[in-house]
Amino acid sequence: MLILMDINATEEQVRNACRRVEEMGYRPHPLPGATRTAIGITGNKGAVEADALSQLPGVAEVIPVSKPYKLASRDVKPENTVIRFANSDATIGGEELAIMAGPCGVESRDQLFRSAEAVARSGARFLRGGAYKPRTSPYAFQGLGEEGLEILAGAREQFGLLVVTEAIDHISLALIEQYADIIQIGARNMQNFALLKLAGQTRKPVLLKRGMSATLEELLMAAEYIMSEGNYNVILCERGIRTFADHSRNTLDVGIIPAVKRLTHLPILVDPSHASGKRDNVAPLARAGVAAGADGLIVEVHCDPDRALSDGAQSLYPAQFDAMMQNLRGIASLVGRSVHAPQTAGAAR
Amino acid sequence: MLILMDINATEEQVRNACRRVEEMGYRPHPLPGATRTAIGITGNKGAVEADALSQLPGVAEVIPVSKPYKLASRDVKPENTVIRFANSDATIGGEELAIMAGPCGVESRDQLFRSAEAVARSGARFLRGGAYKPRTSPYAFQGLGEEGLEILAGAREQFGLLVVTEAIDHISLALIEQYADIIQIGARNMQNFALLKLAGQTRKPVLLKRGMSATLEELLMAAEYIMSEGNYNVILCERGIRTFADHSRNTLDVGIIPAVKRLTHLPILVDPSHASGKRDNVAPLARAGVAAGADGLIVEVHCDPDRALSDGAQSLYPAQFDAMMQNLRGIASLVGRSVHAPQTAGAAR
Amino acid sequence: MLILMDINATEEQVRNACRRVEEMGYRPHPLPGATRTAIGITGNKGAVEADALSQLPGVAEVIPVSKPYKLASRDVKPENTVIRFANSDATIGGEELAIMAGPCGVESRDQLFRSAEAVARSGARFLRGGAYKPRTSPYAFQGLGEEGLEILAGAREQFGLLVVTEAIDHISLALIEQYADIIQIGARNMQNFALLKLAGQTRKPVLLKRGMSATLEELLMAAEYIMSEGNYNVILCERGIRTFADHSRNTLDVGIIPAVKRLTHLPILVDPSHASGKRDNVAPLARAGVAAGADGLIVEVHCDPDRALSDGAQSLYPAQFDAMMQNLRGIASLVGRSVHAPQTAGAAR
Amino acid sequence: MLILMDINATEEQVRNACRRVEEMGYRPHPLPGATRTAIGITGNKGAVEADALSQLPGVAEVIPVSKPYKLASRDVKPENTVIRFANSDATIGGEELAIMAGPCGVESRDQLFRSAEAVARSGARFLRGGAYKPRTSPYAFQGLGEEGLEILAGAREQFGLLVVTEAIDHISLALIEQYADIIQIGARNMQNFALLKLAGQTRKPVLLKRGMSATLEELLMAAEYIMSEGNYNVILCERGIRTFADHSRNTLDVGIIPAVKRLTHLPILVDPSHASGKRDNVAPLARAGVAAGADGLIVEVHCDPDRALSDGAQSLYPAQFDAMMQNLRGIASLVGRSVHAPQTAGAAR
Repeated sequence: MLILMDINATEEQVRNACRRVEEMGYRPHPLPGATRTAIGITGNKGAVEADALSQLPGVAEVIPVSKPYKLASRDVKPENTVIRFANSDATIGGEELAIMAGPCGVESRDQLFRSAEAVARSGARFLRGGAYKPRTSPYAFQGLGEEGLEILAGAREQFGLLVVTEAIDHISLALIEQYADIIQIGARNMQNFALLKLAGQTRKPVLLKRGMSATLEELLMAAEYIMSEGNYNVILCERGIRTFADHSRNTLDVGIIPAVKRLTHLPILVDPSHASGKRDNVAPLARAGVAAGADGLIVEVHCDPDRALSDGAQSLYPAQFDAMMQNLRGIASLVGRSVHAPQTAGAAR
Repeated sequence: MLILMDINATEEQVRNACRRVEEMGYRPHPLPGATRTAIGITGNKGAVEADALSQLPGVAEVIPVSKPYKLASRDVKPENTVIRFANSDATIGGEELAIMAGPCGVESRDQLFRSAEAVARSGARFLRGGAYKPRTSPYAFQGLGEEGLEILAGAREQFGLLVVTEAIDHISLALIEQYADIIQIGARNMQNFALLKLAGQTRKPVLLKRGMSATLEELLMAAEYIMSEGNYNVILCERGIRTFADHSRNTLDVGIIPAVKRLTHLPILVDPSHASGKRDNVAPLARAGVAAGADGLIVEVHCDPDRALSDGAQSLYPAQFDAMMQNLRGIASLVGRSVHAPQTAGAAR
Repeated sequence: MLILMDINATEEQVRNACRRVEEMGYRPHPLPGATRTAIGITGNKGAVEADALSQLPGVAEVIPVSKPYKLASRDVKPENTVIRFANSDATIGGEELAIMAGPCGVESRDQLFRSAEAVARSGARFLRGGAYKPRTSPYAFQGLGEEGLEILAGAREQFGLLVVTEAIDHISLALIEQYADIIQIGARNMQNFALLKLAGQTRKPVLLKRGMSATLEELLMAAEYIMSEGNYNVILCERGIRTFADHSRNTLDVGIIPAVKRLTHLPILVDPSHASGKRDNVAPLARAGVAAGADGLIVEVHCDPDRALSDGAQSLYPAQFDAMMQNLRGIASLVGRSVHAPQTAGAAR
Repeated sequence: MLILMDINATEEQVRNACRRVEEMGYRPHPLPGATRTAIGITGNKGAVEADALSQLPGVAEVIPVSKPYKLASRDVKPENTVIRFANSDATIGGEELAIMAGPCGVESRDQLFRSAEAVARSGARFLRGGAYKPRTSPYAFQGLGEEGLEILAGAREQFGLLVVTEAIDHISLALIEQYADIIQIGARNMQNFALLKLAGQTRKPVLLKRGMSATLEELLMAAEYIMSEGNYNVILCERGIRTFADHSRNTLDVGIIPAVKRLTHLPILVDPSHASGKRDNVAPLARAGVAAGADGLIVEVHCDPDRALSDGAQSLYPAQFDAMMQNLRGIASLVGRSVHAPQTAGAAR
């Protein structure tokens, strides 16, 4: 159920409508748009009595919503969600592509800082790097934990980057909320609904990776879990799905990008590194993603990939990343987007 | 790395070898077998110095293990794992098939007790029922929580059944460890490694459902996560995988059963309910699973499926379940297994 | 569109109704059932004028059919199709399971006769063996061609078996129609519509294997291609689908069996050899198929699998096949079916 | 097995080496490259005696080839294959992207000519249109047959386009070889090996579409079937694979493009129409394909898609196609390619 306010409804009228919804035992989600505010209603088991609400001052219309996701739906919020940050003019979902780059895992201060410096110089605005690594094997490197988060925070200060890193449980989530700018939920946890709810209770944007065999609807429902807790800043991410094809680590489903754009207002990134699994195939997939309309990329770049503790084979050398960024500038401009300018050595922050 | 003890090695020699492994900074996992004890070694990053260990008293051989899973491997433990319970003579992995049955979710005391009575009467030894439901939609019924666990525990007392129920996070896990006999990890959490580790720290058997797009190796690695924490009682469960086929909810991969039997000593169950998604197709899939060598079944049975809050369409009527059990008795005996006898009304406990 | 005749309609009335359909420019397909005859109508682009037909003598009802397949639909013909042969009392789709066995390819007279003798002795009624092999590589053994068909025909005489072998084009099809009892269309040709039509113009039963990524509807539509040419004796075959799972050559979709039984009157076999790809896993899958309700099996058995020119790894040794058949007898009887008795050495024919 | 000739080997030496190969009972395939000629050898069952060949005049080296495909391999021919035509300066695999466009099926002279005029004006060099339609249903429009081919040939004359159209069996293939410039083998026939061999015996280039669940190796082996008959002008085509994803008709596997480029010298096109299934999503996928390095596109464009007899929903309006072509010019130039200039009304030919 959705309340559409009048174009000239006052803030007081919006607050009043929300109060009525709460009194009825439901949860209101005010969603300001370009021309008017919509109020999503969740928490109802069956039909909501629309009549009482449609008579409130400032209410234009009360609309039943039939899709299983509501807050994520473009029906509810026609304008693209653009995510902004207090400490940076970078955006996600805006005109400038959001480029997130860095190593798979934080291995040491030296490794992270060298990698961060390189990606910042080439124009990345966001630094990726895992402090908690969900590894298939219990015997593989599991990440540096809070020490890794401290290193990430240090690199943020040094290079003026925003930090995105993965949470794997309630403990890591609480720490990441303190240290990082964006909380990543990995593909294997896309339907870890307990973790999604906790992420929804934070006030940091959440990067939600598509599960290996998740349909688009399941991805949007996972976003809805986060949003239904009141955190509307969700960034979707296509990182390849699992198919029979064996020439790449996963199969990048580039076709999800226009489908996402039609159904939801949330931004979507592409992860060409996990999709390809091979360094040399990252740039073609990155170009394809941008050409298809993605809002940005998350890419693995390592200062010394041959010595990486994880995902070395798919991590770009800094020079490869730099060349890829040059190439992307042209493609971005052809689809109405831009890429942040490369930074000269001394200029970062 | 694996230490194979002499056939006549003493307990003291086993303890001594474990102590040496710990002194080297690794973790020993003593695994008693029919004729001798093996000691799995985990926690090593690279090669373990085999020489020092091979000279210890009572050690027959030190074997490097190349498969990524160790404790789950049949190389390490050739005999089938048979899981036993203090309060029941039911087993999992033994000659008698483990039949787990009950509703998708615990909805009320009346609903659960009526369902439990029915499944016990037909010969089930284990009662399934979710108190915490991982639902695709945040707006769908999410389970009764601890109240549901109390109802399950009540049914256990009343009908002499062992209880299996799903944990979705650290909070539900801690409660389930108290209330239930078996902790279920659902398909969507198969690679929630944080939850797997916590489950490995409990001392209750863990029913681990295969993820929708998990390979056999990934399933065994998930089991390894649990086992590497010291809990060796893991039960695998095939519940259908996600494919392009649209005539059933999932595609039951019956071929995994002989493959599992070759690679691991752990038991494997089949869930024909989630595989088929349709009540009428549950019995054929259950028969197929048993015929292919599964160690048991987990089946949705509801006293009143047409009013179920979840999974009603795939829940059997009690009479259907009873007929299916009759049929399974014959098939079980042809593959060297048995099914617990049906209970007359007054006989349960 | 479907004409349902009166229960006591005369043959003359059926012929008359067919004649009317032809005059309207469509194609009638009379389908005699247990109690009454139905006449399928194909060749219509849009709606057929039902009124004119419903008034004909002997016509009970004219029913629009919404499923894309008509002749294959159980709506049109509620009774199971049972395929019979002039020169044998074996059936397909009847109470006795149809067991087809033999080598992947015909390699020599000696190899085929030894294999045929073995499978006949164990109770198989049908001999399989390829004279034309659709191989992934142009450089692999492509079959003996017509010489192979002659050898097959010789083995039929010698051992009293019915012969099933694969057609790959119009040339091989014409020869196989002469030499064999059943024409096989392989998985890779399931949507080779030109070949399906030609097979529909023969008067030999057609064994139609499911394509590697065919949905159930596509499989039934492929059967419909054959039937729409007037050949109603189509046998479906599940041989495993292509998925991400890598523990078996293909993923046997045992769940298609009950779905097939609901939608169509056509029989369905299971091919456990191509599904598993490994000799040791053939018997569990064969048992699963029969337990789930399949009408029979097609199994690779080779007198000397270690020297087979193709599919050696998945071909059973004769003794394995014999043991499997023993085991299947019990399972068959539990699902209301039977398996032909083993033949003593001198008894065949 | 592969013979590498000296850089300055004479034509006579190449012919001589081929003769020797034939005398040994094998088939030689001379493949001229930029600097030297390689001779692929096929038809050998086991190892070829390399010694005799390595001593021939003009032979630099004899190399065993371990990949299952030989003639398609880049090892054998490092330079890209560029396909040229007698009656046009258009190429496939060259610097200019090969753009093939037109309706799904030829429905009438008027429909095809109007569509052809539109695509020629926007810069397409190749006209697509089916005269033989492989339809899932036997009751759907199956194409105009030879009449359709005549219409296509007429449009070629009128608009100076090269014609590509699909063969479905030996009869249509023989006609298409006469009427068309490129023979298309559809996805459903990718492993119709009999048809592949016949296509290999023609001297027209073959557009080979990837099967719905074909691996890259299977696609290359299908190309090898054509090439092993002596026709080296094979064009691969990615048209989307079948996965669980349901937001598009198929899943465009854009990642196959860089993988193809590494393994083979053959060109690869992308079919964004069959991949997306929805008109509005064609342009994003087309852009993605070109950005990832495809050698061209095959796109459905219909003069009046709302009245199309097949695939109307995924057919572009002429104006959409024109806009897409404009957009592609920019992207092509960023990846070192070009798009043929749009033609003013009177200028075609």
